[in-house]
Amino acid sequence: MEVKVLKDILSANDQIAQENRRMLDESGVLSLNVMATPGAGKTSLILQTISGLKKKTRIGVIEGDISSTIDADRVAQEGVPVLQINTGGECHLDANMLQRALKNMALSDIDLLIIENVGNLICTAEFKLGVHKNVVISSVPEGHDKPLKYPLMFTVADVILVNKMDLLPYSNFDLEAYTKAVKGLNPKVDVIDVSCTTGVGIKNWLSWLRGQLGKTKTKSK
Amino acid sequence: MEVKVLKDILSANDQIAQENRRMLDESGVLSLNVMATPGAGKTSLILQTISGLKKKTRIGVIEGDISSTIDADRVAQEGVPVLQINTGGECHLDANMLQRALKNMALSDIDLLIIENVGNLICTAEFKLGVHKNVVISSVPEGHDKPLKYPLMFTVADVILVNKMDLLPYSNFDLEAYTKAVKGLNPKVDVIDVSCTTGVGIKNWLSWLRGQLGKTKTKSK
Repeated sequence: MEVKVLKDILSANDQIAQENRRMLDESGVLSLNVMATPGAGKTSLILQTISGLKKKTRIGVIEGDISSTIDADRVAQEGVPVLQINTGGECHLDANMLQRALKNMALSDIDLLIIENVGNLICTAEFKLGVHKNVVISSVPEGHDKPLKYPLMFTVADVILVNKMDLLPYSNFDLEAYTKAVKGLNPKVDVIDVSCTTGVGIKNWLSWLRGQLGKTKTKSK
Repeated sequence: MEVKVLKDILSANDQIAQENRRMLDESGVLSLNVMATPGAGKTSLILQTISGLKKKTRIGVIEGDISSTIDADRVAQEGVPVLQINTGGECHLDANMLQRALKNMALSDIDLLIIENVGNLICTAEFKLGVHKNVVISSVPEGHDKPLKYPLMFTVADVILVNKMDLLPYSNFDLEAYTKAVKGLNPKVDVIDVSCTTGVGIKNWLSWLRGQLGKTKTKSK
């Protein structure tokens, strides 16, 4: 019974995700779904991305949270358009929530849409939004075993950032074991080490992102 | 529709949770539901607890994970009985999963049952298991704003541990702001700072736990 309900919900969701993708493509907007556990650095990465790209790229942000506007307030200070989705308890964004937000955004005024999903390493990976690229952030203090314990998230990722590399000296995080686990699940995924605090590695991330902005159509997620 | 389905599921769950509680009470077992985001230190806290209490207290552990037996393997090395629940994709334990596990444990042989829930700061808080105490772990690198963004978890907690205090010098975590946010949601909750890596503060946690072991009946969760 529960499984049947979930299947119906996911199937309806996928259809709306396709509509979202069409809206984004028609407006020529590259869209990212940023997913991670709470506190891995989603908002910090978005702030670094805005800072690095905003001179040449028109960026919009959608912030997904259960409650509060803490992250949206931080992003708004950067002078880019931000829209807050409060899920009211739901542990993930879904395609319908995103569609309502897209209809309230001036998509023709932006080139890049960054969606910050709810902090959750599980459920967020199950609901397609219709975006172009899934961006997954791990962080050093979380430990290197997370890909083995939460495999779906690392399987749906198009690019994975390992954040908080500045904490590596104080941690037993094994980057080699982590990368091996990730590549076992998702051999083609790009893995980029960064520290949003010190800025180390951010230029590699921006370079990856500029590469995506240079392409036109990509596979729907 | 979705809300109705969820309500029915939660109501059925609560009934099974009450049965679990009865089983635990009849066996005189104190039970803990340990919840946190992935990588906050749930398994590390359990290992520290076993190490600190196992001479005088008979401990059993149930490990909840989506997949893998990584944590159960670590705990088993300590020589305590461990049972693994793999949820097969589900993002939380529920009362039914716990009941199946309890029926496979020799409850009369233990005094303390520690249940490690799936790494998730949202859904795990929604499903009562029937245990005596909800133990929530935050960690310093996650940042101090988590109680405001994931309020339910901090509301259902009976005790909150702030782990990875050894990383405080390398972080902008504001313990005062964190504690204020927690107490705003849950004025009576106990907050204990620890580092499972260095062992700092663990004696305060063990002292709290010994206090609970000394009591008899407590309110069902």
